Amino acid sequence: MKNSVFSQIKDIRNTSRKLYLSSDEERQVALERIALNLEKDKERIFSENKRDIEEAKESGISKQLLHRLELTENKLSSAIEGLRDLKEIKDPIGRALEKRELDDSLILEKRTYPIGVIGMIFEARPDALIQIAGLALRSGNGIILKGGREAKLTNLALIDSIKRATENLSIGSGWILGLQSREDVSTLLRAEGDVDLIIPRGSNSFVRYCMDNTRIPVLGHSDGICHIYVDSYSDLDRAVNVVIDSKTQYPAACNAVETILVNEKIKEKFVPYLLEKLEKKGVLVHGDRGLSSKLLPLSEDSFITEYLDLEMNLKVVSSLKEAIDHINLYGSHHTDAILTEDMDVAKAFVDSVDSADVFINASTRFADGFRFGLGAEVGISTTKIHARGPVGLDGLVTTKWILNGNGDVVADYAEKRKSFKHRELL
Amino acid sequence: MKNSVFSQIKDIRNTSRKLYLSSDEERQVALERIALNLEKDKERIFSENKRDIEEAKESGISKQLLHRLELTENKLSSAIEGLRDLKEIKDPIGRALEKRELDDSLILEKRTYPIGVIGMIFEARPDALIQIAGLALRSGNGIILKGGREAKLTNLALIDSIKRATENLSIGSGWILGLQSREDVSTLLRAEGDVDLIIPRGSNSFVRYCMDNTRIPVLGHSDGICHIYVDSYSDLDRAVNVVIDSKTQYPAACNAVETILVNEKIKEKFVPYLLEKLEKKGVLVHGDRGLSSKLLPLSEDSFITEYLDLEMNLKVVSSLKEAIDHINLYGSHHTDAILTEDMDVAKAFVDSVDSADVFINASTRFADGFRFGLGAEVGISTTKIHARGPVGLDGLVTTKWILNGNGDVVADYAEKRKSFKHRELL
Repeated sequence: MKNSVFSQIKDIRNTSRKLYLSSDEERQVALERIALNLEKDKERIFSENKRDIEEAKESGISKQLLHRLELTENKLSSAIEGLRDLKEIKDPIGRALEKRELDDSLILEKRTYPIGVIGMIFEARPDALIQIAGLALRSGNGIILKGGREAKLTNLALIDSIKRATENLSIGSGWILGLQSREDVSTLLRAEGDVDLIIPRGSNSFVRYCMDNTRIPVLGHSDGICHIYVDSYSDLDRAVNVVIDSKTQYPAACNAVETILVNEKIKEKFVPYLLEKLEKKGVLVHGDRGLSSKLLPLSEDSFITEYLDLEMNLKVVSSLKEAIDHINLYGSHHTDAILTEDMDVAKAFVDSVDSADVFINASTRFADGFRFGLGAEVGISTTKIHARGPVGLDGLVTTKWILNGNGDVVADYAEKRKSFKHRELL
Repeated sequence: MKNSVFSQIKDIRNTSRKLYLSSDEERQVALERIALNLEKDKERIFSENKRDIEEAKESGISKQLLHRLELTENKLSSAIEGLRDLKEIKDPIGRALEKRELDDSLILEKRTYPIGVIGMIFEARPDALIQIAGLALRSGNGIILKGGREAKLTNLALIDSIKRATENLSIGSGWILGLQSREDVSTLLRAEGDVDLIIPRGSNSFVRYCMDNTRIPVLGHSDGICHIYVDSYSDLDRAVNVVIDSKTQYPAACNAVETILVNEKIKEKFVPYLLEKLEKKGVLVHGDRGLSSKLLPLSEDSFITEYLDLEMNLKVVSSLKEAIDHINLYGSHHTDAILTEDMDVAKAFVDSVDSADVFINASTRFADGFRFGLGAEVGISTTKIHARGPVGLDGLVTTKWILNGNGDVVADYAEKRKSFKHRELL
């Protein structure tokens, strides 16, 4: 079986060829067929999900994980709705990004094409499988999926339903491959040349593990250490609201805030007010005991901890520069915000903070593909290469340069018989 | 000294901060000052270059390498002209790529910013140093440069002149760092987190070595195995011209062609004609002896050889599909061309060949940043991530998402008190 997974991964570039070459319409039809088939198969999917849940309960997994594992009627129908939304997004493939006349009748174009083969490794949530398969299909990419082992039977049922939905269409069913075991993940991470991009979704340590164990490019973020700097010249009521939202609206998200930096000029007015509101929300705060005797100890280690819970750090800084230096040193270059009424200070903050998302007077929780209006979110990237921040379908495309001539040769230009015009056509 | 290079690399993000934050005008002024200073220092630079050349001659390096090492008056002045050309290129930094109103007064922008710190490792040509330093400066990136050891004294003189040109300007001289020894390259390749992108320019094996020995993203190509497919329906005179140009105009370039695939329908008419022209140009051809008794042996190994010389392969294929499959299997996804008068066949070729550059009726030698009209060429990339094909200054920028609000919180949207507008402003 080991060998078989190896060869299936090797083959997927070829078996997904029909999808790579498919038209917008063919991909739209396929999404609709998958949506219909999942609706038709839902009883079987739910019953497989129940078996997964029973086994998970016996093995004693956490309530939180159990909750994520459970595929409710609601979750399935919103995942199916997501597929139909994807149909409506403008085709990401075949778009001309540049077009230039190099010389008479020598036309250069840069067009978008599918990347090729994407490997996606995700955690327990089986509804994510539907979304990921849809994103891959919409962008013409072959997809290799490895879900959490707790959801094994559910994932098998979902992939089976998706495959059957497209096997009689022009794109066939060779574009999607499900992996089962942990060993398959190692095989996938070693498939340089056969797989073009790895997208891990899971714990920070798991994403880091993927990045450290493959030569294939990895799109993702390993940490979300986000900051808010409250400038001396800021509206304190609004500042408290934004901090509360950034920490408590969904504390387990990567874009929740971990450290609040407060300018010392407003320390006395703002800190007691903020702490009172945070206490009401049940947030534990690490900080200098000189600010309040209720604060928990603060160390350098606190600044590099992603709490993912109702817990955070508070630090007083003497200047904008100290805030920026703190963020660039301890942050994870994910999402950082400034709260200020001074737009010159805001501009300096935006220019100097080297993060994917830099916000002015808005909650860090806005860092999200849907809220950004990207149509669909592939993931959030903290690398600076290829895609940064919330990534839409454009993170799943590459480009080709297409040059269309009439027997043109370079010697004519090298020997000055002709010269380039370089006229922009777009 | 080892430790010192390590800490200089660690420091360059900070010491290049002023460049990162500089304005378009500051960077234009700096380019002019560097151009002037290099002109002023040219006698010292030439004399250091002579010392390098003498030492190189003693150590018995090849004529070709010696030619590349020599910094002539001509080469220096065209490198300086290149710096002035860079001034004229539109600022790659601060461009808004997307702008969207998420809701009233909640504006999202995606803007270009410098990547941060680039590590460039290049071979003997000292004039390349000037070009690379200029590209880095124009795009606001700190640059670490390691040139070939044959050019050591020349490179030291150049970097010294460049540093002195900017030390009294607002950007200072902390944005550029020259490395000397081979051990420094290892230190550079291990500087994950301090260096954002490695750009190697050199032999295929050296580029491959870099890719295999760093976790930092690498922009480059390790091989240029380029193909031309001559379709049955093509103008044979033009086809011969394009093949001759693609092979002989500059055979040592990565975009020179290595394998010609000929449709069997035109084999009898085209092959003898082509071989006659190639022989006149002194090109050795590997192919099936059934085509001509003069052909050299052809093996699978020939198909993965980058000759970089007047030597090439010829193979007869039975169909467009066989040509495409050959290219996708043996090619290096660099540049491949089809010669045909049938635009449906051309389209199928363009869509199916998975390469950075796919050309119709034009020489593979057009694959080049200058010829493409990119203004300046950073390198040619065969990866599908970040940048593909000839890469201009846009390969040296990343983006930030900037969200500008008025105390906006996500809870308002999660709890349906507000809803997103997502109105495009660009």
